[in-house]
Amino acid sequence: MKLVIVGGVAGGASAAARARRLDEQAEIVMFERGEFVSFANCGLPYYLGGEIEKRDELMVSTPEKFKKRFNLEARTFSEVVEIDRKAGRVKVKDRRSGEFYFESYDKLILSPGAEPIRPPLPGIELDSIFCLRDIPDADRILAAIEAKKSGSAVIVGGGFIGLEMAENLHRRGLAVSVVEMMEQVMAPLDYDMAAIIHNHLREQGVNLVLRDAVESFERRRDGRTAVRTGRGRELAADLVILAIGVKPETGLAARAGLELGGRGGILVDDRMRTSDPDIFAVGDAVEVRNLVSGEMILLPLAGPANKQGRIAADNALGRESRFAGAAGTSVVRIFELTAAGVGLNEKTLAGLGRPHLCSFTHSPDHASYYPGAERLSIKLVFEPGSGKLLGAQAVGKKGVDKRIDVLAASLSAGMTVFDLERLELAYAPPFGSARDPVNVAGFVAANTLRGDHAIVHWHELEGLDPERHQLLDVRDPDELQEAGPIPGALPLPLDELRSRLSELDRSKTFIAYCAIGLRSYLAYRILVQRGFEARNLSGGYAAWAAVQQDRQATDPKEG
Amino acid sequence: MKLVIVGGVAGGASAAARARRLDEQAEIVMFERGEFVSFANCGLPYYLGGEIEKRDELMVSTPEKFKKRFNLEARTFSEVVEIDRKAGRVKVKDRRSGEFYFESYDKLILSPGAEPIRPPLPGIELDSIFCLRDIPDADRILAAIEAKKSGSAVIVGGGFIGLEMAENLHRRGLAVSVVEMMEQVMAPLDYDMAAIIHNHLREQGVNLVLRDAVESFERRRDGRTAVRTGRGRELAADLVILAIGVKPETGLAARAGLELGGRGGILVDDRMRTSDPDIFAVGDAVEVRNLVSGEMILLPLAGPANKQGRIAADNALGRESRFAGAAGTSVVRIFELTAAGVGLNEKTLAGLGRPHLCSFTHSPDHASYYPGAERLSIKLVFEPGSGKLLGAQAVGKKGVDKRIDVLAASLSAGMTVFDLERLELAYAPPFGSARDPVNVAGFVAANTLRGDHAIVHWHELEGLDPERHQLLDVRDPDELQEAGPIPGALPLPLDELRSRLSELDRSKTFIAYCAIGLRSYLAYRILVQRGFEARNLSGGYAAWAAVQQDRQATDPKEG
Repeated sequence: MKLVIVGGVAGGASAAARARRLDEQAEIVMFERGEFVSFANCGLPYYLGGEIEKRDELMVSTPEKFKKRFNLEARTFSEVVEIDRKAGRVKVKDRRSGEFYFESYDKLILSPGAEPIRPPLPGIELDSIFCLRDIPDADRILAAIEAKKSGSAVIVGGGFIGLEMAENLHRRGLAVSVVEMMEQVMAPLDYDMAAIIHNHLREQGVNLVLRDAVESFERRRDGRTAVRTGRGRELAADLVILAIGVKPETGLAARAGLELGGRGGILVDDRMRTSDPDIFAVGDAVEVRNLVSGEMILLPLAGPANKQGRIAADNALGRESRFAGAAGTSVVRIFELTAAGVGLNEKTLAGLGRPHLCSFTHSPDHASYYPGAERLSIKLVFEPGSGKLLGAQAVGKKGVDKRIDVLAASLSAGMTVFDLERLELAYAPPFGSARDPVNVAGFVAANTLRGDHAIVHWHELEGLDPERHQLLDVRDPDELQEAGPIPGALPLPLDELRSRLSELDRSKTFIAYCAIGLRSYLAYRILVQRGFEARNLSGGYAAWAAVQQDRQATDPKEG
Repeated sequence: MKLVIVGGVAGGASAAARARRLDEQAEIVMFERGEFVSFANCGLPYYLGGEIEKRDELMVSTPEKFKKRFNLEARTFSEVVEIDRKAGRVKVKDRRSGEFYFESYDKLILSPGAEPIRPPLPGIELDSIFCLRDIPDADRILAAIEAKKSGSAVIVGGGFIGLEMAENLHRRGLAVSVVEMMEQVMAPLDYDMAAIIHNHLREQGVNLVLRDAVESFERRRDGRTAVRTGRGRELAADLVILAIGVKPETGLAARAGLELGGRGGILVDDRMRTSDPDIFAVGDAVEVRNLVSGEMILLPLAGPANKQGRIAADNALGRESRFAGAAGTSVVRIFELTAAGVGLNEKTLAGLGRPHLCSFTHSPDHASYYPGAERLSIKLVFEPGSGKLLGAQAVGKKGVDKRIDVLAASLSAGMTVFDLERLELAYAPPFGSARDPVNVAGFVAANTLRGDHAIVHWHELEGLDPERHQLLDVRDPDELQEAGPIPGALPLPLDELRSRLSELDRSKTFIAYCAIGLRSYLAYRILVQRGFEARNLSGGYAAWAAVQQDRQATDPKEG
C-alpha cells in the first residue's frame, strides 16, 4: 500500500500522521511545494504582530520529524504538476533542481489548499503589496514592517485575515486602514453584529472604509503606494495587505479530469473521495456540504481541514469514516473584541428564501455583580414553528468563543431554541450567570415562538408610520439623558408604566425599548395584558445605536 | 388568581418575576424569612475575599424594586410557619413584631432553600464557627476577618463553598487549612481529577488535610479555637468555616404532609409540582431527576433553581412547562485553577454498577504556538459499545468552563464520543486548536471503542506483574531526566522505537507512556502493528504523577 499526499500543511499533514497510526506498513510520501511542512498558518498574523516572538514557534513539524516519528517521506520544494490516473502515478517537479520525476501511488490524497486572490488591478505587481499565506510571505511582510516602523498600512478586505492583520499591524505601531467593498466586515456575521465590530475598529483608531473598492495602486513620488478606490479615495501606504479572500487550488485536480463543484472547489463525497475512487481531497480546495443548508460550500478553515485529513486517511486505508458536514464554526479576535459565528446567518437564509426568525440579546458575560463583566451580544437565527437553530452569532469582549462553541454543539445536535432555554450550563460568578447568555437568547427566541413576545427589529423602525406607531422609551431618565433617545420616542420609565397607562393613546401600537430589550419586554408584557397593541425592539437601544453609530461613520453624507 | 411564594432568593424570585410577566392581573405575594430578597448568594465568598467590593453589589433586587417593577409584595422578615392545605392558606410569622397572620393562596410555590449542615460536635456553638448561607452570615464572617487580619482559618469541607472560601480567605491574608474527611475535595470529580486540585491548593500554601474528620472544637487559652480531628490533629484557628454541605429545608413541607423523597428533599414531578397539585416546590429543597442515571438527586445549585422557578410559575399559571432533568453541570474557581464537571463521574457509575469506560486527556487550552497556553485535563466517562457520553470532568487554568459547557450541551443532546470527534468548534490561535481539547478527548475515547487503542489507567499500574508486564517510557531522555520515571520503566524514546524493536522482549506486554499519552499512543500503534502486546497509559505520566504527588503529601507515612 503506497499513499501519496499532495500538500504538507493542515489537511495533508493530518492525513499523513493518521495514515501512519493506522498502518505501520504503508509507504507514505507527502509532497510540499514550499519550504515548510505543517506550519502554523493561523499563527502568521500573530507572528507579524510580535505576540508569537519566534519564527520557530510556527514550525509544528519538519520533514526530519516526520521521518523520525512517522517514518514517512515529507519532500519539500516538490511540486506535483500532474496526476496520471491511468498509470497511478504523479509527476513531481523538484523545485530546487528543476528536474521532474514520477512517483506511483495506490491511493492519493490532495491537500493543495487555496491561494489568496490577487485581482488584476493596475499596479497590483508593486513590491509593497503582499498576501499572507505562508512563511515566506510572512518573512517579506516582516521585512517591510521593520523597514518602516512608523508607517501606514492599507489592508484590502475585512475578513478573518484582514482584521487579524489590522490588529497586529496596529500593534506594530503602523497606522492602519481597512478597505472593504461590502457594507460590513466579517461576512459570516450579519450587518447588525458587524456594526459592533466597525465601531470598535474605529475606537481603536483604525481607518475603516466600507462600501468602497480598491481600483488601482500606484507608486508615489515619496516611494509610498497610493491606493485608489472607486469612490475617489486615495490612501497612502507603506505596506498593502491583500486579504480579499482565497480561491481553491484546483489546477492539478482539474488537469487530471477530477470533477469540480459549482463553487469552484474539488468535488468530494462524504468520505472525502473525488470522482476518482483512488483519489481523495481535503481542506481549502474542496467543497463540503453545509450542515444547515445542505448546499455545497467552500470553507477554508483549519479545523475542518484537519478533520477531513483524518477522514481521507481512514478511507484511503479501507476504513469507513464520514465527514458529517460543515457547521462553519468560526471565531476571530479583533483588538479587544471577539466575534464568532456558526451555521447560517440571516442574509444567507434570506438569499436562500428560507423562512427564519431572529433574536438579538445582550447579556453580561458573567454575573454582573462580579467584577469585570462585559456585554456579550448574541444573535440567534431559527426556524419558525419548530424553533430549530439555524445559526448563531456572538460579539463581545469575553466569553464569546464559549457561547459559540456551546451553540455549535447545540446546532450540530439539531437542538431548538426551546432546548437552549433548558440547557444547564456551568455557573459560578467568574464564569457565567444562573441564566447563561445562551439561556437568555433561548428565552427570548422561544418566547417569540410561543406568542409571548412580539418583536420588531432595528431595521423595521425605519418603516414606522407615526400615525399608527409610537416608540416608547422605558429607560430611566438619567440613562435616556446620557445615551440619547431614538428620535420620536415617548419617555415613560418602566417602573411608572402601570400608573401612567392612561396617558397612552390606545389607538396606537407601542414599540417599547430599553437599553438591551429586557425591561422593554416587561413593558411589552404589561401593555399587551392591559389591552394595548405593543411590540418590543429586539436588542434594544444597543442594537439600534450600534447601527446608527456605524452608519454615521461609514458615510456621514448619507447618514 | 393569587400566587404565594415562600422564599425570596433564586428560585422564589425567579418564579415571582416569571409569574408577573405571564399574568399582569395575578396577585403575587412572596415571603422571605430573612432581611434580603434576591441577593447574590453565589457571590458571598467573593465579597468576603474583597473582589466584590461593595455589599450593595450583592443586592440583585429589593422589596421596593419588586413592588415598582413587578407589582408584587415581597415581604421580608416574614416566615411561613404552616401550610393549611385544606383552607388554602399559609400562616406567617412577622419576625419583627412576633405576630402571626394568615395569607390565602390559589397556588403556592415553595423555595425554602437548604441550610448548612452543623453537626452536633463538642464546641460547635463557639462564636468563632461560621456557616455561609446569607448576607448576615457574610457580615459576621467579615467582622471576624477584619478583627484578625493576619490570623488563620480552618475550613471544614472541601466542596464548592469550602474551596471558594479557601481562596478568598487566603486572599485576605489568612493562613488557611481545609479539612476534608474524604480522600478528595470536590465530590463531583473523581479522585484522579481532584488530585490536580490538591496539588494546586498545596502549592498556594493551603494546608490541606484529607481523610480526616473534625471531632471537636475548643476555645484555647489564647482565645483561638482548637480544631481537633479524628486522626489526632489539632489546628488553631481564629475563624472556622463550616462548609460540609447543606440539607434541604423541608420542615414546612413535611409538616404540611407533602411527600418527601428518598434523599430527604421535597418530591416533585417534572412540572415542579409536589404531591399537592396546588403546591409547587423548586430549588435546593427539592429532588430532581438526574438526566443520566434517572435517579432522584439533590442539586443545590443556582442555575437549576432559577430554571425551576420559571417552570413552577408556568405551571402554577396553567401553562405546560417541564423540567428536563438535571445534568449537574458545575464549575468552581480554585485559585488559578478552574474545575468543572457534568453528568456522572466514574465513582458514581461504579456505585450504580453501571458499565462505563473512561478516557483521560491533556491538551493545551489553545494552540500551543500562541503564547499563554495552559494544560487542560479532561476526563470523559462513556458507555461501552455505544460510546454515549455519561459524564465529563475538566481541570485547568484556562478554558475549562468552555469545554464543560460544550460537553454539557453534548451530553444533554445524547451525543456519543464519536460525535465529539466530529464536533466543529471555533478555532483561532487565542481560543482553541484545530483539534479542540474536546475533539482530542473524543478521539481517544472513540479509538478505544474502535479497538484501535488499548489503555490502562494509572490505578491499574499497581497490579502489574513484572514477569509479564513492562512499562515503556517513550519520552525524550531530557524529559525523563527532569520529571523522573515511573519506577520500573524501560526508557526508549518514541523516535528510536522502530529501530530498536529487537531489544524488546516479545513475551511481555508493554505499557507505553509519555508525558500526556499522545506519543505513547503512537508507540502503542507501532508496537501492536509489529506484533507486540501493548497498552497505553491513559493520561500519561501527568495523570500518574498528579496522584503520586497528592498521595505523598496527603499522608507521607502511608506514601
